[in-house]
Amino acid sequence: MTVTITAFERSPDGGKGLARDTRVRWALEETGQPYAVRLVSFAAMKAPAHLALHPFGQIPTYEEGDLALFETGAIVFHLAERHAGLLPDDPDARARAIAWMFAAVNTVEPPILDLVTVRIVEGDKPWAAERMPLVVERIHGRLRQLADRLGDAEWLDGAFSAGDLMMVSVLLRTRPSGILDQHPSLAAYVARGEARPAYRRAFADQLAVNTRPAD
Amino acid sequence: MTVTITAFERSPDGGKGLARDTRVRWALEETGQPYAVRLVSFAAMKAPAHLALHPFGQIPTYEEGDLALFETGAIVFHLAERHAGLLPDDPDARARAIAWMFAAVNTVEPPILDLVTVRIVEGDKPWAAERMPLVVERIHGRLRQLADRLGDAEWLDGAFSAGDLMMVSVLLRTRPSGILDQHPSLAAYVARGEARPAYRRAFADQLAVNTRPAD
Repeated sequence: MTVTITAFERSPDGGKGLARDTRVRWALEETGQPYAVRLVSFAAMKAPAHLALHPFGQIPTYEEGDLALFETGAIVFHLAERHAGLLPDDPDARARAIAWMFAAVNTVEPPILDLVTVRIVEGDKPWAAERMPLVVERIHGRLRQLADRLGDAEWLDGAFSAGDLMMVSVLLRTRPSGILDQHPSLAAYVARGEARPAYRRAFADQLAVNTRPAD
Repeated sequence: MTVTITAFERSPDGGKGLARDTRVRWALEETGQPYAVRLVSFAAMKAPAHLALHPFGQIPTYEEGDLALFETGAIVFHLAERHAGLLPDDPDARARAIAWMFAAVNTVEPPILDLVTVRIVEGDKPWAAERMPLVVERIHGRLRQLADRLGDAEWLDGAFSAGDLMMVSVLLRTRPSGILDQHPSLAAYVARGEARPAYRRAFADQLAVNTRPAD
């Protein structure tokens, strides 16, 4: 059954791989699943046809036969559950890997996304400059806790899992600001993720979309 | 095997049921699982013994034999996967219910939690009053999208699921501010969740903890 995902026609990051389709591409590559990509413009994302797939008008979506899914975490989990390579067999280890998936999007990513709020959404507000260091310090707080837990381990809990895939993807968002490099063990953890052949294929594929000549 | 969860010794909400242990209590009640509660103080949450269970120093945690879990979504999913009552049997419907779990914590809750930032964390900042309407409008935007998808259905996708449990719990956070009541279909959806006997038991149990006399 053909899998089709959606991605930005042009990602706001210009191809840095920070758009969420990269996470789904990565999971598809780790599990060896072929897929097609349908590119959507910002206008099309808010139109009824796309809202039927994604109630919040975002990318990525996932279509496979009669199944339509939204939410990156849910799509990655769906792939991890049906194909080998992203979740351990041991039931307890599997539950812990899922905990890291939720931790990535629910606990680590929200303070990081506040960077977008302070820089872009509220970038023209008089408080933006003064608010920035508060936002940055909250991110550092979370990353310190994460680094404490990671210690000198290679991955968060034993072998590489969907939890690492999600956490590395979330942490990548802190690199352009220089925040990630202030946490060397996390920077090395992210680099291990990026070095995986599946990530490299996913990254190259999203880059090709975002650097192709305009029509 | 005895299940033990952690909860605030005293919840900052004084027993409104907004602390995340209520979500786990609710899932335990829906699936008919007995459990014990260990109360932790704010100081204890940041101490090594608790950080070993929860790397970000929060509640709830979940212990069951050798398994220790953190992240509310992961704990609710663990219960939903092992016991009947929170996930449909049909594989596609199950994947969609999981998508709503992720949507609750990853897409709907972050703008809602910004209310805590603007009111409390940054409540003493000169921009707090001017920033508030921006934060509130972002929440309304998300709730409008959610209401559009819910339509006049009882639950988000067929029968009540762990996705509804998580979404109702997230939406409850918008009630004290009056935001929820501006979306009548969502207010009715939340009321349906609260009317479930399992929710009522979970709510009563957390209320008893938070209204007991001080030592």
